[in-house]
Amino acid sequence: MYKVAVVGATGAVGMQMVKVLEERGFPVEKLFLVASERSVGRKITFKGEEHEVVALKGFDFSAVDVALFSAGSSVSKEYAPKAADAGCVVVDNSSAFRMNDDVPLVVPEVNPQDVDWHRGIIANPNCSTIQMVVALNPLHRINRIKKIVVSTYQAVSGKGLKAMEELRVQSADVLSGKGVVPKEFPYQIAFNVLPHIDVFVEDGYTKEEMKMLNETRKIMGDHEIDVAATTVRVPVFVGHSESVWVKFEDEMSVDRVKEILMRAEGVVVVDEPSAERYPLAVDVAGRDEVFVGRIRRDLNDPSAVLMWVVADNLRKGAATNAVQIAELLVKRGKI
Amino acid sequence: MYKVAVVGATGAVGMQMVKVLEERGFPVEKLFLVASERSVGRKITFKGEEHEVVALKGFDFSAVDVALFSAGSSVSKEYAPKAADAGCVVVDNSSAFRMNDDVPLVVPEVNPQDVDWHRGIIANPNCSTIQMVVALNPLHRINRIKKIVVSTYQAVSGKGLKAMEELRVQSADVLSGKGVVPKEFPYQIAFNVLPHIDVFVEDGYTKEEMKMLNETRKIMGDHEIDVAATTVRVPVFVGHSESVWVKFEDEMSVDRVKEILMRAEGVVVVDEPSAERYPLAVDVAGRDEVFVGRIRRDLNDPSAVLMWVVADNLRKGAATNAVQIAELLVKRGKI
Repeated sequence: MYKVAVVGATGAVGMQMVKVLEERGFPVEKLFLVASERSVGRKITFKGEEHEVVALKGFDFSAVDVALFSAGSSVSKEYAPKAADAGCVVVDNSSAFRMNDDVPLVVPEVNPQDVDWHRGIIANPNCSTIQMVVALNPLHRINRIKKIVVSTYQAVSGKGLKAMEELRVQSADVLSGKGVVPKEFPYQIAFNVLPHIDVFVEDGYTKEEMKMLNETRKIMGDHEIDVAATTVRVPVFVGHSESVWVKFEDEMSVDRVKEILMRAEGVVVVDEPSAERYPLAVDVAGRDEVFVGRIRRDLNDPSAVLMWVVADNLRKGAATNAVQIAELLVKRGKI
Repeated sequence: MYKVAVVGATGAVGMQMVKVLEERGFPVEKLFLVASERSVGRKITFKGEEHEVVALKGFDFSAVDVALFSAGSSVSKEYAPKAADAGCVVVDNSSAFRMNDDVPLVVPEVNPQDVDWHRGIIANPNCSTIQMVVALNPLHRINRIKKIVVSTYQAVSGKGLKAMEELRVQSADVLSGKGVVPKEFPYQIAFNVLPHIDVFVEDGYTKEEMKMLNETRKIMGDHEIDVAATTVRVPVFVGHSESVWVKFEDEMSVDRVKEILMRAEGVVVVDEPSAERYPLAVDVAGRDEVFVGRIRRDLNDPSAVLMWVVADNLRKGAATNAVQIAELLVKRGKI
């Protein structure tokens, strides 16, 4: 049994972490719910018992075996190294350490072995990257992927609880003819789509788009894969969808792709065009798998296919993946 | 001056057609507003005067010079040939005749010369195709396009007024915790995205996706262009957005792409990442141009670029393009 801390326990992902720890029966001896000062004293139920939220400032990580962090990059940068120094293993959901050479970036279905070389911090990848690599890695293992062109349809919950509330309030305001004052998003998100997630970096790309390139390469352990990403926020509460075009080294039939994905770990194929069956964001909310449908050949390139990949961004895209990493640490004797 | 009929005048596109005819000062001698029996007697204002809607059944097209049809494929199939036989030139917004060899498929910025060989019917292309070819044809003329991978974010108004009402009602129902009963769309469209527009055809593609391939080839007059499309409905009222990856025959810099697009007919470049400026669906509603932004190089392929293309699907994607075709007919002496 392990002493577990959830840092950022009152956030959109933190709340899911607590829920997923319970649902998956992680062997928790004691649970610490950690957050900023203003959440101290709030109560969160875990396994039928109320737990009081304690302050991150001054929290003693030496009393903890594993800490799941989801409180943003600046909090992780300050506290994750302290926690690791105190002997606790940190699974960090922020982007703070993902590209550090001495930090494994892990999706359990893809590169479980990478938890072995952790030095106290393991990074949880970006939500849009996780679901894509879960779907594509099983194919890559059989027929090397050369290039991916991906366009995302990302839910507002990826930006947190306030962003969800903004979508709710703005939608009601638009429906009743009121004006809209964006706060969490740069422009109106209700009944609109924004081709802009995270900040703009070099070459006109956003950081989110660069994550999909760099994190995919690191997780899949292949630094030659091309990922040309366009990441877009859509007015959906939970569930990221992705339109993915993949080019392989060799020809690959759609039947073969389906056959591989149907037995891939963590993947559910939902693909019956004749019955109008394909994965939908509203259906995957609350689920832990990655759903793939609309699998079809590129009509002009026998070595390329298209697909539609959907997952719950708060769960497989964040909380579930983090808890799965903690499970791996237990299984592989690394905590 | 010309006698003009708008068939389907009470629909989402028909109403825009009337508006655009007025705004652009099309030389209308007499305007006939034509619709199905149940709309007969409704009044629509054109140039400050009320016009009464008349029935399509029994309507005498010999009294008309040009008829803009937007009442669905089955209506067009039945009435457009009759209208053409009566000596009227039909500009048809449905998909009924688009791929017929004896019917020109025209986007005025791209292939104006094709109106010349009409035999009574000219087809108006699919909304998502129009905005894409307006943005890409100027580039294609300079550096041949080999392949396009496009994912769309299409507004519900593309499916008509009832679909807009369904998004409105469903959104309010979801916000107030009520259940949702989809009618116009196969599944919930409020706070969701649907990778399914028009019916499924062969190979797991939808008809909308096949239109983007076949219509692009016909309009651009190049039957070797590849278009791998994924068409997706999003909870937006008006304004289609498209994430486009384009591969050219030769290398092409982003600066060159921007330079060409900035002087392209019907294109407005909105592209300042540092100021968080890019085209948005909510901003283009009511506009006639095609807006392009997020123009950036493929980081791993010097002959490919990515861009974000947005237009008002009811106007440039339908009504405006149809009226522009009528203007071309006048200009080129074809009516």
